[in-house]
This record gives sequence, structure tokens and C-alpha cells, in this order.
Amino acid sequence: MEEINNIEVVPCTESDYLKPFRVHYNQNGTKKSWDFMRTHDSVSVLIFNTTSHCFVLVKQFRPAVYMCEWEKAKTQPKQTTEKTEEGAAEAASSESKEGQSPSEGESSSQWPPASEGITYELCAGLVDKPDLSLEEIARQEVLEECGYDVPASKLKRITSYRSGVGVTGAKQTMFYAEVSDDNCVSTGGGEPCEGELIEVVKVPLHEAMTFAYDERIPKTMGVIFSFIWFHNNMSPKYKISTNV
Amino acid sequence: MEEINNIEVVPCTESDYLKPFRVHYNQNGTKKSWDFMRTHDSVSVLIFNTTSHCFVLVKQFRPAVYMCEWEKAKTQPKQTTEKTEEGAAEAASSESKEGQSPSEGESSSQWPPASEGITYELCAGLVDKPDLSLEEIARQEVLEECGYDVPASKLKRITSYRSGVGVTGAKQTMFYAEVSDDNCVSTGGGEPCEGELIEVVKVPLHEAMTFAYDERIPKTMGVIFSFIWFHNNMSPKYKISTNV
Repeated sequence: MEEINNIEVVPCTESDYLKPFRVHYNQNGTKKSWDFMRTHDSVSVLIFNTTSHCFVLVKQFRPAVYMCEWEKAKTQPKQTTEKTEEGAAEAASSESKEGQSPSEGESSSQWPPASEGITYELCAGLVDKPDLSLEEIARQEVLEECGYDVPASKLKRITSYRSGVGVTGAKQTMFYAEVSDDNCVSTGGGEPCEGELIEVVKVPLHEAMTFAYDERIPKTMGVIFSFIWFHNNMSPKYKISTNV
Repeated sequence: MEEINNIEVVPCTESDYLKPFRVHYNQNGTKKSWDFMRTHDSVSVLIFNTTSHCFVLVKQFRPAVYMCEWEKAKTQPKQTTEKTEEGAAEAASSESKEGQSPSEGESSSQWPPASEGITYELCAGLVDKPDLSLEEIARQEVLEECGYDVPASKLKRITSYRSGVGVTGAKQTMFYAEVSDDNCVSTGGGEPCEGELIEVVKVPLHEAMTFAYDERIPKTMGVIFSFIWFHNNMSPKYKISTNV
């Protein structure tokens, strides 16, 4: 999964995925405007395998995360705040080489290793099928991404919250699903036709809290929170290490 | 804070805040591309007032959240998935009226009440000052948004994680700050010149867990997680209700 090369960045004038809008409004009589993007709500699922006593996560290369790190490697040595479109457009591909950072204004740059773009996440998906319940959408993601076939009725709602409140503000609903090896019907990995390249990884229960708070392991807040939710709410049922 | 009117939505072709880029790359020999946006990393702070035994949060109107709800009110009655730019551009302001949803294609629409765009969040800010440490940036946000003057050395790092992994992938670092009424030097509320209109709210310790899991209160995952982190890690020091 971690072989990434031939990287090229260009400004994006027309995107099927990122569509900025501007809203003008009055707040307590003051005229304001705000740029935002539309997106779908989403669901995520904390999966616990009761056979192996492991959490089931997905691990994938996230271009947006990788580009963040590239940006930092590029700007931090000079402590500059300016980030120009030209700079991004000019940046051409090159072999990544850890520890080296590109000089500003060069037409080719050293890229961070691909591992800098990898994140551990909960199984998740967009709420883009209006005929389906949140539970049914979550069920499909568990099947497609992680290979477990569980009925929607087995999904327990944990909570919901807002994400990206400055830009998208979408609502995310989190579920908990217990699965067993008997529910495993495929290797998962996502839908190749959708360009997904997902690795299914297991985190043993006794390592979960250490995993959650280890900042060297890049992950989403959903992973951290849900592990701790499990720790607080499922510990009467399953033993979990508490040495944090 | 909650008087919002004269709302108008237009497509946004040029934004100082949202700049989409496209990255082309090879992943294991397969050509791919991804649209992403650059953004700054951010810091957030769980503030606990040891005088009043309250958490200090910020509450604000978030246009992106509001527009999500408007979109849903518009599309859900007909269970349609199509969201057209024209529809958004045509939508003109009108008095909000709860429970009513606009017909599609109308040039004016009923808008949800302003309360639909309100969220409770941790005190937070962008890491856009390269000369300052994360702790120093967090300290400034605590002062500007919430009015407490605490030294950066009193900020305890909780953890860090990735947010918006599909679009921005920025790194968020969360801190914990104990303050007392003696540290309170202003009412906070953000920087008016930056267009911030922030209400500082207190959540009593004994209500925190109920607040965290009450889905009727719109909030970010950072609020939920940090309240539970406090519950797990500070409970020997402060009593907290555990009836969840």
C-alpha cells in the first residue's frame, strides 16, 4: 500500500468533489459572508471482533494528509507563512527522502515518505443513499471495507456530532458493531471501482488504550474516542488494559 | 447571537479561504488523483474552571453547519439526491419557519431557525503563526475567546489526531488548561475584527457527561472526547457524575 510516486500538484479550478459556495447573511444586524463546502453526512463504525478480541480498523493512504506533511516539510525550515499556488503547481515528483526538505521555489521538491500520508480510521462512509437508514449504510460499509456481514439491527448507536464546523459542518453518526470470525465473508478492502485501497487492520483489545494515545500512530479522533468509549462502557463485559 | 436573516447563497469561484488543489500520483503503480484543500493545523483547549467547577466552551453560529441543515430541509421531503448549484444560487432569504420545507426550484425558500447552525465547541484556533509554539497559540486563543490569562506552561497536552482526512487532513493538537476566576481578565468573545462572534458558556462538571452524550446539543467530537478524557483522568482529583 505504501508505494507512492510520480506526484504532481496542480490548482483545481473545477472539482466534482470540492464545490465551494459563499453564503451572505445578517447576524444581529451585521452583514457577513462565509465560504463553505457542501458535503454528505457520514457514518462510522467501531468494530469489535469477539472471536479474536480485536478492534477492526481501516488503514489507508490519504492524499490530503500527505500533502499537509509535504507543505510542512517545504515551509517549516524557513518558518515562512506564505503558501503560493505557484509553488504548489511547480512542485514536480521526485523520490522521497526522509529528513530532507525542499528549497523554496525549486521546480522539483523532495517528498516525505509515503507513510506520512497513512492514517488509521474507523470503518466509515458517506450518507449518500437517501433510501437507506444510517444503520443500513453503516452495515454496507462494514461489509465492503472490512468484510464482515452483520445485520443492521446489530449496530448500536454511540453518538453523533458535527465535523469540520468551519468548512462543511456535516453530521457524523458513530455506531458500535460486534462481529465474530463467523461473520467474516471476505477480506474487505473497499470497492476497487471507487478507487479505494484500504487495508483492514486489527488492534488487540489489550493494546487499545496504548494505541489510542500513541501520537506516533496517525489516526482520527473517532478512533481515539471510540476506544475510550469501549473502555468505559464495555469493560464490564470485556477486559481492557487501563495502564494509561 | 441567534438572529440570522437575509441569507443568500452563491457559487464561490474565488475564495481566500477555500483553495482546492488536485494531486496526481501513482499508488502501487496505479495512476490516481485526489482533490484536496490546504489548511492550517489547529489547536483546541479543554478549559476547566477550578473556582466554579465548570468547563468553559465556546458557542457560535456556524454558517457551514447551518447550510447543511438547510440542504437537508430542502431535499429530505422528496428523498432526492440531486443538489444543484442553481438551486442554491436561487435560494433567497425569507423568514425562517420551523417544520416547513421549501419546494424544490422555488426562488425563495423557508430557512431553518438560526439555532440549527449553533454548535458548542472547545476553545480553538489555527496554527498560523510559525514563530509561536502550539502552547503559545493555544494560550492566545484561551485569552481571546474565553478571557482567561494563563501561562503557556500551564497547558497540558492531551493528544493529537488528524481531522478531515478526506479533504484537509490537518493535524489537531488538544490541550487541557485549568483556570480559576482569578485568571479571568475579560469576557472573551473572540476578535471582532476577525468577524468572530463567540459566546462563552459554562458546563457544570456534574452535568458534563450528560451534556457530552445528549445528541440534541450540537457539538464537536472534541467536546465529547475531552469531557470523557477528563472523566477518566481527572476524576481522582475532581468528582464527576458517571450516570451515563
